[in-house]
Amino acid sequence: MTLAAFGYANHSATDTLKPFHFERREPRENDVAIDILYGGICHSDIHSARNEWGGTHYPCVPGHEIVGRVSAVGSSVTNYKVGDLVGVGCFVDSCHHCKPCQDGLEQYCENGFTASYNSEDKIGGTPHKFTMGGYSDKITVDEHFVLRIPENLDPAAAAPLLCAGITTYSPLKHWKVGPGQKVGIVGLGGLGHMGVKLAHALGAHVVMITTSPEKGADARKLGADDVLLSKDAAAMKAAKSSFDFLLNTIPVGHDIDPYMELLKLDATMVIVGAVEPLKHVNGAPFIFKRRHMAGSLVGGIAETQEMLDFCGKHNITCDIEKINIQDVNEAYDRTVKGDVKYRFVIDMASLKKEKYYANH
Amino acid sequence: MTLAAFGYANHSATDTLKPFHFERREPRENDVAIDILYGGICHSDIHSARNEWGGTHYPCVPGHEIVGRVSAVGSSVTNYKVGDLVGVGCFVDSCHHCKPCQDGLEQYCENGFTASYNSEDKIGGTPHKFTMGGYSDKITVDEHFVLRIPENLDPAAAAPLLCAGITTYSPLKHWKVGPGQKVGIVGLGGLGHMGVKLAHALGAHVVMITTSPEKGADARKLGADDVLLSKDAAAMKAAKSSFDFLLNTIPVGHDIDPYMELLKLDATMVIVGAVEPLKHVNGAPFIFKRRHMAGSLVGGIAETQEMLDFCGKHNITCDIEKINIQDVNEAYDRTVKGDVKYRFVIDMASLKKEKYYANH
Repeated sequence: MTLAAFGYANHSATDTLKPFHFERREPRENDVAIDILYGGICHSDIHSARNEWGGTHYPCVPGHEIVGRVSAVGSSVTNYKVGDLVGVGCFVDSCHHCKPCQDGLEQYCENGFTASYNSEDKIGGTPHKFTMGGYSDKITVDEHFVLRIPENLDPAAAAPLLCAGITTYSPLKHWKVGPGQKVGIVGLGGLGHMGVKLAHALGAHVVMITTSPEKGADARKLGADDVLLSKDAAAMKAAKSSFDFLLNTIPVGHDIDPYMELLKLDATMVIVGAVEPLKHVNGAPFIFKRRHMAGSLVGGIAETQEMLDFCGKHNITCDIEKINIQDVNEAYDRTVKGDVKYRFVIDMASLKKEKYYANH
Repeated sequence: MTLAAFGYANHSATDTLKPFHFERREPRENDVAIDILYGGICHSDIHSARNEWGGTHYPCVPGHEIVGRVSAVGSSVTNYKVGDLVGVGCFVDSCHHCKPCQDGLEQYCENGFTASYNSEDKIGGTPHKFTMGGYSDKITVDEHFVLRIPENLDPAAAAPLLCAGITTYSPLKHWKVGPGQKVGIVGLGGLGHMGVKLAHALGAHVVMITTSPEKGADARKLGADDVLLSKDAAAMKAAKSSFDFLLNTIPVGHDIDPYMELLKLDATMVIVGAVEPLKHVNGAPFIFKRRHMAGSLVGGIAETQEMLDFCGKHNITCDIEKINIQDVNEAYDRTVKGDVKYRFVIDMASLKKEKYYANH
C-alpha cells in the first residue's frame, strides 16, 4: 500500500515542470505523514531540475522548503500529532550512526544524507528509486527529520526558513556572532536577506556589503545598520581589517581578495552560496592577519529546530512572493534573473485547480 | 656615536651581494649589542634583495635568522648579559601598544612591525633610514626583540629556527596539533622540514605530502610517519577527509582543491608559504565539510622563545649547509633551484677574510 501523491515534476533538463502523479510510502511506525501547505523555491531547485550540477534523476519533483500539517503518525511517534504545523528541510534521512549524525550534524553525515529530492531513497516503500520533493500535496518523513513550526509565524513565509534560514543561522551561531561584533553580510538574495535579519536579531552590528545602492537601502529596512558598497574602492579601503565576521552569500564564483581584506586579525569569512570555483584568492591576506575562510552547509536537525524557535521568539520569517504552482516555471525564470524579493513560495492549495482534483 | 659594522649588501635588483661598510646604533639603555656568529638564508631574502616583491631600498643587507653572542648591554637591560647566546628573527621593533602587540602577537602589529631589514627604522641612531639585516658582523636590538638560544643547540643550525622554525611552530601550536592527530605537512623545503620535525615532536602522526618519492624518503628520516604522494590520484582519494590539520609550506601559488579534500569535517589547512595568488580554489570542498583555510605569519616574541625552549628540550635544529659569506651569491642561485637540504647558513667568521679586517 502507498499513498497517492500529486505534484509538479519535469522529465528532462529542458522540460518545464508539469502536473505529475506519484506515490508516497504509508507511514511506518516512526513516520509522520504531512499535508503540504507551502513550498519555497530555492535556486538549487532550478540547478537540479535543469541538471546544471549533473546527476539529476527524472522525473524530478523539486522542493526542500516544506511546511504543512500532520495528517497521520506512525504508532511509535510521540513528538507530533495530527494537525501539528511542521516543516521538512533539505534532507529526510541519514545514517544515524556516524560521528556527525551522533553529534546532530546530519548535514555532514559520513555516509551521505538523503536529500529531500533526487537522492537514492534508502527507506523505500514506493516504486520510486529516488526521493521526490515538496512541490506536491503530501509527504511521508521519518519523525527525526520533521521540524516543528512555531504557530505564531505565517506558515508560507516560514517555509524558506528550512533552507535559507538555517543556511545562514548555522554559521552565525557556529562562529558565535553576537553583540559587540561588526558582521558583514555579502550579497542580498534569499540567503543574504535572512543573514541580515538573523545577524540583527543575534545582536550584531550588521553591515550589508553589496554592489548596489538600491539593495543597500533594502537591507536597511531588513535590519542592516550600515551599508558598504563593494565597488567603492575608498569605502572598502577604509573598512579594511574592521570586520569580526563575514557571511558570504554570493551564489557564484567571485573575487575573494577584496572581502578577505575586510576581516580583522583571526576573523573568518564563511562561504555559503558559491558551490563552485572561486576567483582571485591571494595567500597574502590570509597570512598577514591569520585570516580564515570556511564553508558551511545548511544545519543539523537540532540546530534547525533551534533556529525555528529563535525565529518564533523574534517573529522572523522570510520576505516572500506567494505564487500558484501553475506559475512555477515563470518563477524559475524570474529567480534566475534575481527578480524576487526574496523567495517565491508555492501555495499548494493551487494544486486543487488541476484536473486530477476535479475527479476526486 | 655609532658602531662601525661590516657585512654584505647589494645596491640594485640585479647586483650581487658584496662587502659593505655601514653603521649600527650605540646601545640605548634597553638595547642589546650582538656579535653575529651565524645568519640563515631565507628565500624571502632573495625576493627582497632582487626586489621581486617590490619596495626594496638599497643598499640592502638581508638576513633575519640571526644567532650571536651579546657584546654589550644598555643600563636597564636585565634579561641578557655579555656572552649570552642570543637570536634575532624577522622583526626588531613594533608599536608595543596596539592590541596584537599587547597580546604578544607583534607580527600582527596594527601599526606595522619593523622588519629586521628593508624596513623604515623608527628608532634611528644611524645615518641609515632603513634597517640592515643579519648578513653582517654585529647588530643592536631592543632587548624585547632578542631571543635566548639554548646553549645545548648547535648555534649555526639554530639560526633558521628564528624564521623557518617559528613560521611552522606557531600554526602547529595555535591550531593545537598534538597526539592522536593525523597532520599533513605539504611541501619539503626549509619550512616543510621544520614542520615535520616539530609536528613529530608535538606527538602528531605526521604525513609528508609531496610530489616526489625521494622527498618522501627524506621526510621519513626527519620524523614523518607516512608519505602521501600528491600525484598519486588513488592515494589522494583514499586519504580524502582523513586529516585533522594540514600545514601547507608550498612557496608559490598552486592548486588548493586537492589538499582541501584531504581535511576532515571542521579541519583547517594553514598556508605559510604562498604569499601570492592561489589557483583552483573551489567553494564546494569548504561548504560540504565546513573546512577552513587560514594563513599564519611567523610568530610573536613570547611564542618564538617558547619554540626555542621547546627545540632545546627536544634537541631540534634545522638541517643546514654551512657556507662562507663569499659564497652567498651562489647559495642564492642554488636556493632558487631548491638545491639545498634545507637551509644555507652563513658562518660570519668568514667576514674576517675580507680586506676590511686585514686592516683592523
